[in-house]
Amino acid sequence: MELFNRRGYDATSMGDLAKELGLTKPAIYHHVAGKEQLLSLALDDALDELTAVVAEASRERAGTTAHERLREVVRRSVEVLVAHQPSVTLLLRVRGNSPVELAALERRRWLDDRLAALVADAVKEGALRDDVPPALVSRLLFGMVNSLVEWYRADGAYDTATVAGAITTMAFDGLARHGFQAS
Amino acid sequence: MELFNRRGYDATSMGDLAKELGLTKPAIYHHVAGKEQLLSLALDDALDELTAVVAEASRERAGTTAHERLREVVRRSVEVLVAHQPSVTLLLRVRGNSPVELAALERRRWLDDRLAALVADAVKEGALRDDVPPALVSRLLFGMVNSLVEWYRADGAYDTATVAGAITTMAFDGLARHGFQAS
Repeated sequence: MELFNRRGYDATSMGDLAKELGLTKPAIYHHVAGKEQLLSLALDDALDELTAVVAEASRERAGTTAHERLREVVRRSVEVLVAHQPSVTLLLRVRGNSPVELAALERRRWLDDRLAALVADAVKEGALRDDVPPALVSRLLFGMVNSLVEWYRADGAYDTATVAGAITTMAFDGLARHGFQAS
Repeated sequence: MELFNRRGYDATSMGDLAKELGLTKPAIYHHVAGKEQLLSLALDDALDELTAVVAEASRERAGTTAHERLREVVRRSVEVLVAHQPSVTLLLRVRGNSPVELAALERRRWLDDRLAALVADAVKEGALRDDVPPALVSRLLFGMVNSLVEWYRADGAYDTATVAGAITTMAFDGLARHGFQAS
């Protein structure tokens, strides 16, 4: 996954992968049918985790509001992105150049649709403002979450909880200091 | 730029470019020294625009606050991303695999540093909350802006002003409805 991310999937050959892994090409082919199967396994790693998180958040249940479940799915998405950064990075760069990539895009669309529906529910229950289109809010909110894969370093300045807290604070409460009036 | 984005820069050959453009390879080489010069021109297209916007926002001047200049740089960045979507997309995918890419990353770092300084100034003047690290705010805010390149369509549901408005509303004022208390 790291080599695919560094060099681009299409530009990476099985020979490159063998060299990176210190294996022979036949040794890799002993385990997988080819490069596309490796991509498929990597994308499933990301998609299975994200699907579990979004399915759980989409499940209406007594005692929770859509607003609470939306905050929770933001927090848990950040955890998945940090724990599965290489596979999520690969997933977010998929363009649909093959059947495997198209299938991954299809699963991403399901996630996007569920998240947009959750935002719409939180607006309907009155918790979120209704002057910004829910589908646009969902795009931007999870665009912010997904941007993590480009710069987050597990050994960097911020732990997962700090990042998740910063995202929910900014997105739900806003950066502006209450009561402050610009001159 | 579109072919680089669709297939990945490293996987695109001069032969692919000639075919896409309906030209012969010698016809392309008549104008540019090679693929890397095309990449360099494309990255400069994005970087020159973004640098102008950020330099203007960074310039302290009478009658403006850092908070106002930060909101303005968000709005103008959205305009640049929409007007230069192919070159900004390419820029955001650069990994540093060549001297041209490393030079582009260096220019991106300057932009990131100026934006982080602007957020810090807005916190210092008291306009923005001080309980989230300014460098993290800057990453997330412009991560949200940059996410546009992945899904924005000029012929889609939202015009530039709607998107810029949604981002500043969410980031500065927050999505939560004031006065609403979750049960």
